[in-house]
Amino acid sequence: MPIHALPDTATAPLTEFLSHTAAARLVARHGVLPTLRGMARAIEEDFMRWPAFDKSARVASHSRHGVIELMPVSDGRSYAFKYVNGHPGNPAHGLPTVMAFGALARVDTGLPEFLSELTLTTALRTAATSALVASRLVRPDSRSMALIGNGSQAEFQALAFHALLGIDQLRLFDPDPAAVAKLIVNLAPYDMELQPCGSTAEAVRGADIVTTLTAAKARAAVLQARHLAPGMHLNAVGGDCPGKTELAPQVLRRARVFVEYEPQTRIEGEVQQMPADFPVTEFWRVLTGDAPGRGSADEITLFDSVGFALEDFSALRYLRDLGRAAGLLEPIDLVAAPADPKNLYALLTPWLAQRGPSTLTK
Amino acid sequence: MPIHALPDTATAPLTEFLSHTAAARLVARHGVLPTLRGMARAIEEDFMRWPAFDKSARVASHSRHGVIELMPVSDGRSYAFKYVNGHPGNPAHGLPTVMAFGALARVDTGLPEFLSELTLTTALRTAATSALVASRLVRPDSRSMALIGNGSQAEFQALAFHALLGIDQLRLFDPDPAAVAKLIVNLAPYDMELQPCGSTAEAVRGADIVTTLTAAKARAAVLQARHLAPGMHLNAVGGDCPGKTELAPQVLRRARVFVEYEPQTRIEGEVQQMPADFPVTEFWRVLTGDAPGRGSADEITLFDSVGFALEDFSALRYLRDLGRAAGLLEPIDLVAAPADPKNLYALLTPWLAQRGPSTLTK
Repeated sequence: MPIHALPDTATAPLTEFLSHTAAARLVARHGVLPTLRGMARAIEEDFMRWPAFDKSARVASHSRHGVIELMPVSDGRSYAFKYVNGHPGNPAHGLPTVMAFGALARVDTGLPEFLSELTLTTALRTAATSALVASRLVRPDSRSMALIGNGSQAEFQALAFHALLGIDQLRLFDPDPAAVAKLIVNLAPYDMELQPCGSTAEAVRGADIVTTLTAAKARAAVLQARHLAPGMHLNAVGGDCPGKTELAPQVLRRARVFVEYEPQTRIEGEVQQMPADFPVTEFWRVLTGDAPGRGSADEITLFDSVGFALEDFSALRYLRDLGRAAGLLEPIDLVAAPADPKNLYALLTPWLAQRGPSTLTK
Repeated sequence: MPIHALPDTATAPLTEFLSHTAAARLVARHGVLPTLRGMARAIEEDFMRWPAFDKSARVASHSRHGVIELMPVSDGRSYAFKYVNGHPGNPAHGLPTVMAFGALARVDTGLPEFLSELTLTTALRTAATSALVASRLVRPDSRSMALIGNGSQAEFQALAFHALLGIDQLRLFDPDPAAVAKLIVNLAPYDMELQPCGSTAEAVRGADIVTTLTAAKARAAVLQARHLAPGMHLNAVGGDCPGKTELAPQVLRRARVFVEYEPQTRIEGEVQQMPADFPVTEFWRVLTGDAPGRGSADEITLFDSVGFALEDFSALRYLRDLGRAAGLLEPIDLVAAPADPKNLYALLTPWLAQRGPSTLTK
């Protein structure tokens, strides 16, 4: 008897599941660029109704190896959470630094309707958010981007900026030549000019946008004030937890800084290096028109990305709808619904009957 | 092509899954009574090393319909969390009041190794905890228990007390006769005397143990001081969130009160009605010998159960081991592990190759 065979009294599974393989198929079938555009649109829609969400900073469990976090958020109708880890030493054990999964539930019943892989999805939503933010902050004539750090997130950032802003010139730098080579292989089929560079200074020279994506859990200063040029947009993605930063404080002081959710970014973002009154703007206010974006063509704008639960909420609902339409969701027997909801024990009864009375008295 | 067919570059799934149907089969195969005993033993082992756990109160998202909670806990080697809802109106929509699932992960890599249903498991671990606590606090000659509230949790409490303490006389009361009838049908195969009663007062008369299991989200006083008799053990299970209590304050004042995790129980338990300095004892201290249990044959002892994340940790590890041995765990494709952990994009490559180059440029 297969594991999933149900006794007659059981009801059909109540949850839909998007496995990581199905997610990869789904993204490939829909196209990476359309998926990034669609996900950015979903994030934009949800950022536009920011006050409707019950937000809280993530719940983190730190160890000397890394961190495991739970990220919940709700809009009063749907509730989402993500499980995500960050373990810089994982690649040495054959595992990705970041792995994730999560669920979308109904607030009115608590039913978890959708369970999903979120490893691939986290990479997509992080990139889609960066490109969405940049689309409102860059100089309109921006065409080139420097990518400092060419690890797992680099392709997604490159493609999101290509999809949303038409960026078609990339200047690549990573101290590990294998990372640069990997990025070039993966991006080769796309219509972009790829220029490997020998240093951060060389990569940022002439770039309209600078994306920093380094991974070491340490105070670093990958980007210095001397790397800056008037009118640049900086997309700082790598610094995203306490003790992990990528930018020199002088870079922050030279830029106008935009964040996702201020209370979380003060703890986790680049601005953890700055005084508590260092000015930041929550990006959703730019979308709704409550706050200005870029002030002039010469201004340096900076998105201090840390990743916020609301983006996972948007990504989950977007991929659920896309996956359902594509027939790539599977039913999964995650929560129990006995025929009589007040009779949970009845879930056991048919199986106990198969075992016979001796099971009951030992 | 089936959803789960993997391209050659993918690795095997890294997570094992216990579905709710598999959990029901597993419990029936192992026997309900041995499962409750085994789970109580796992909880006892983990309570004995209480200081090793990184504990935090649950993260709750309240709405007018109910509550959705995340409950994390870690011992530095393993990390567990549970998703659980509480929606008293659910049975009217054909859903259980409480549904749950959760996972067990490695702290050193963050890999979620085990995903499990926890609806049935929550009922089992709540009952196993109650019986474990009672086994150290009741008068040794206890034989009978009153069950006030005969809903979904009642069978599990009855069977846990039968399995661990040999309780074989049950006095049942619920204002809904259908609930009592359901309980009698479910417990009929077991070797217990079942006495339906017309009121709480009748049910508690002569009972050595009184278990309260009512579900309404309100301040109630199901049990009054006049119901008490010297030497009773009270097992208060139903009151488990802010604004939801079952016992009159005088009952609490007459009893010596034991709790799971004091900071959580002060907010969620019966003792939320009492001043902040009302004396309680964390039960793990009784197990380790750091605090006394029952002081005399006449004393009234009370377990103010709210359910703590550590019990889910124990239940998860117990069922994973039991399920693995029984061959009832399934591999599930929950998190991605690309062949090169620094090349997440490679997860998409084989699927993109199947789609052809047009996918890449739109």
